[in-house]
Amino acid sequence: MTEFENLSGMLPSKVRQLIREGKWRKPTSGLSNGYTQANLVILPQKYAYDFLLFCQRNPRPCPLLEVLDTGDAIVKLMADHADIRTEIPKYRIYKHGVLTDEVTDIKRMWREDFVSFLIGCSFSFEQALLENDVPVRQIEEQCNVPMYRTNIPCRSAGVFKGPMVVSMRPMTERQAIRAIQVTSRFPSVHGAPVHFGDPAKIGVSDLSHPDFGDAVTIHDYEIPVFWACGVTPQAAVMASRPEIAITHAPGHMFITDRKDTAFSIL
Amino acid sequence: MTEFENLSGMLPSKVRQLIREGKWRKPTSGLSNGYTQANLVILPQKYAYDFLLFCQRNPRPCPLLEVLDTGDAIVKLMADHADIRTEIPKYRIYKHGVLTDEVTDIKRMWREDFVSFLIGCSFSFEQALLENDVPVRQIEEQCNVPMYRTNIPCRSAGVFKGPMVVSMRPMTERQAIRAIQVTSRFPSVHGAPVHFGDPAKIGVSDLSHPDFGDAVTIHDYEIPVFWACGVTPQAAVMASRPEIAITHAPGHMFITDRKDTAFSIL
Repeated sequence: MTEFENLSGMLPSKVRQLIREGKWRKPTSGLSNGYTQANLVILPQKYAYDFLLFCQRNPRPCPLLEVLDTGDAIVKLMADHADIRTEIPKYRIYKHGVLTDEVTDIKRMWREDFVSFLIGCSFSFEQALLENDVPVRQIEEQCNVPMYRTNIPCRSAGVFKGPMVVSMRPMTERQAIRAIQVTSRFPSVHGAPVHFGDPAKIGVSDLSHPDFGDAVTIHDYEIPVFWACGVTPQAAVMASRPEIAITHAPGHMFITDRKDTAFSIL
Repeated sequence: MTEFENLSGMLPSKVRQLIREGKWRKPTSGLSNGYTQANLVILPQKYAYDFLLFCQRNPRPCPLLEVLDTGDAIVKLMADHADIRTEIPKYRIYKHGVLTDEVTDIKRMWREDFVSFLIGCSFSFEQALLENDVPVRQIEEQCNVPMYRTNIPCRSAGVFKGPMVVSMRPMTERQAIRAIQVTSRFPSVHGAPVHFGDPAKIGVSDLSHPDFGDAVTIHDYEIPVFWACGVTPQAAVMASRPEIAITHAPGHMFITDRKDTAFSIL
């Protein structure tokens, strides 16, 4: 807990150094408080156009923060200098859509045709929700946000297609109204909710069994509120079974040098 | 004038039909009032990844509204059904970066490797400015908005690079404050201004000689306010001299079936 508290106020570059040196291999939630964290997808160049187009066509679930040049492993915009191959605590390797390995370093398997995509994450607006007295249940309960596959189709692009995945936070109607206002300020990291209330209307049958992440308590005076989720593009990638794809392991994100507030347009 | 007044209240699909039938070959400003108009860039597929990445890296000047599938000429999201080859009043053909022709139909020169990009335009927020009593001088003076090359570099992507081009509207400081609020609601069609006041600070030396469009009156109690402009990606394309590129002719835009208000996040 002391270690965690230290890291929560530590600069991203220092935390990434600890990660690079193998001294931090746990989830990144709560680290470098106030700085945006990002999802990672790495694909061979031959899939990059289709994936870039998929993200362009589905900006709500797939907000691209940075796309590195082909073969380049150095983050330039979202961090002042960071090596995408070593500065994430845990990576997942997928071959033909099947998880084959979890590793803490992808330097040895790097290829000159790899394209790295950093994708926005709802972590970026959760601090703003808390500051506005909107509860964020999975933080209270110290678990992962619950995520669900919906029946909302994404617009397909080349080989990539699939349903929108949403994250869910329970709250009162009054808090939901405030949450809509607050998250509308963050259009480049998912923005306003896509739905609230009856989960069946977006094809979700059982909130207690999320498709990804953990179930959280929903009090009987609360309604579920749903946001487009950055797991959507990952799910679309897996479904298309590319020969190889690398992502961050769930919860083990890339910590950027950019503050959450930089993504607020108001 | 009667003809113009009729067209200003006409549905986009009807105006596009007149265009398709060769009955309207003039600029589209003021037509189908309240509906968003878009810039067009068509490139061979081999340039499409670099161009898509250029737009992703420079979202303020290059807000992509829709990218058609390779070889597909039918607009699907921004219009319910429209043929991009015939439903714009005038096109420009560039070969190796040089303007070689202006035509009213590109059906005969269509290629299976063409990718069409529809890009947002500041027309989309001008109605909102007018409704908030912010003057739009080039509308008052019935000319084209003045546009200037700046010393603000775009982030390059593959073969595409170049400076940001801005549009300028003169107004009082008080109106500028309101204009910043109003256009912040439209992040997907350029959003808030990038600069106001001293043009030299962004490398613009003479407001009376715009690089594109027409000079407008600036009263001595007004300051210039600058927005990122959709001419930026066109200028980057021309500078990279692709074997062929097709764009709309200035002022002769694609009229979408989407209302301007659909691009406001608040």
